[in-house]
Amino acid sequence: MAAPTDKISEFTIRRLSTYYRILMDLSQKSIATVSSATLAELCGVTSAQVRKDLSYFGNFGTRGLGYQVSELKSAIGSILGLDRRWTMALFGAGSLGHALFFHQGFKDDGFYFTHIFDVEPTKIGIRWEAMEIRPVAEARNILGADPVDIGVIATPAKSAQEVADILVDNEVNGILNFAPKRISVPENVRLRNVNLAVALENLTFFLSS
Amino acid sequence: MAAPTDKISEFTIRRLSTYYRILMDLSQKSIATVSSATLAELCGVTSAQVRKDLSYFGNFGTRGLGYQVSELKSAIGSILGLDRRWTMALFGAGSLGHALFFHQGFKDDGFYFTHIFDVEPTKIGIRWEAMEIRPVAEARNILGADPVDIGVIATPAKSAQEVADILVDNEVNGILNFAPKRISVPENVRLRNVNLAVALENLTFFLSS
Repeated sequence: MAAPTDKISEFTIRRLSTYYRILMDLSQKSIATVSSATLAELCGVTSAQVRKDLSYFGNFGTRGLGYQVSELKSAIGSILGLDRRWTMALFGAGSLGHALFFHQGFKDDGFYFTHIFDVEPTKIGIRWEAMEIRPVAEARNILGADPVDIGVIATPAKSAQEVADILVDNEVNGILNFAPKRISVPENVRLRNVNLAVALENLTFFLSS
Repeated sequence: MAAPTDKISEFTIRRLSTYYRILMDLSQKSIATVSSATLAELCGVTSAQVRKDLSYFGNFGTRGLGYQVSELKSAIGSILGLDRRWTMALFGAGSLGHALFFHQGFKDDGFYFTHIFDVEPTKIGIRWEAMEIRPVAEARNILGADPVDIGVIATPAKSAQEVADILVDNEVNGILNFAPKRISVPENVRLRNVNLAVALENLTFFLSS
């Protein structure tokens, strides 16, 4: 799976996530093989796009027979890093943080929150499942002693950069930012900004036309 | 803006959303023009991709001079349907629903919640801002009298299909589904499933390699 990651765009990976979910569905329906045309149609892309996206990572499928569902699913899962466990620190125990913490889909994909931080005195010490909400002021020490792979920022906009700096100082190389603010991180840190309006825009484009 | 929407993929539209956000940033920095190469780099795609995506919708930019930031921003905003007001009904007043309802970015883009529904008796009658949470059992009547453009499903998985059916029966043609369950809707209804794990997979791909 040693693909040249700097040549592969975020959009290719997003499509791989879509292929992965469709393959999960097919697998649950006990469908063993799928053509690139059918996979493409289910995912809403062209079959040329499917073949191009997969070609970055190896040779999948057999001409005339299509792809083995279980084999391709495992391969894409491995490409996406879903064959291991990832630890995450959550910053912001508001309603978005709560929704993320209790989102079952994360655990199913191997993503586990191992820390929750907030600044609000009334929230410190409260437990979500068995996990105690700790003060952001202690995050540097806590993450120093018990590092995580990924930091999830679900704070108000004004705190996002401060939290990002804490994560960067603790050598957390992956940041998922839900705060409605662009943050700056060094080049070696992978940052994804989640903008909840993007999915709506995707709807309204089709509703407008 | 009469583009053949059935030829345009969800991923093209997603990229348009990215271009739009970057153009907003450039505009706020009072940058008047941008080359397709620079726009592409800021968005993490190739300049051929930028030109191809925009070519579906018209002729933008001038060879050698690039794009007028404000003109292209307005054009993409209009393509995405952001030049009007959209009304939305929220189903599910849990933590995710709460986070969505209070998400400032939606209003900035012209998306307004006009109804909130839940099944939980302890939630019915509570107000978020001035808006009262109403029983899902009354949703058909309420939406019949005061229709919306978009339904947002933020319920547990088990209620998602029931809510989708209510929306479809009320001729709501756009559905944004956050519930971790695939739902079925007629072909004329635009459905987007938001999977919060997709953004994480986009990170872990790059962290794995």
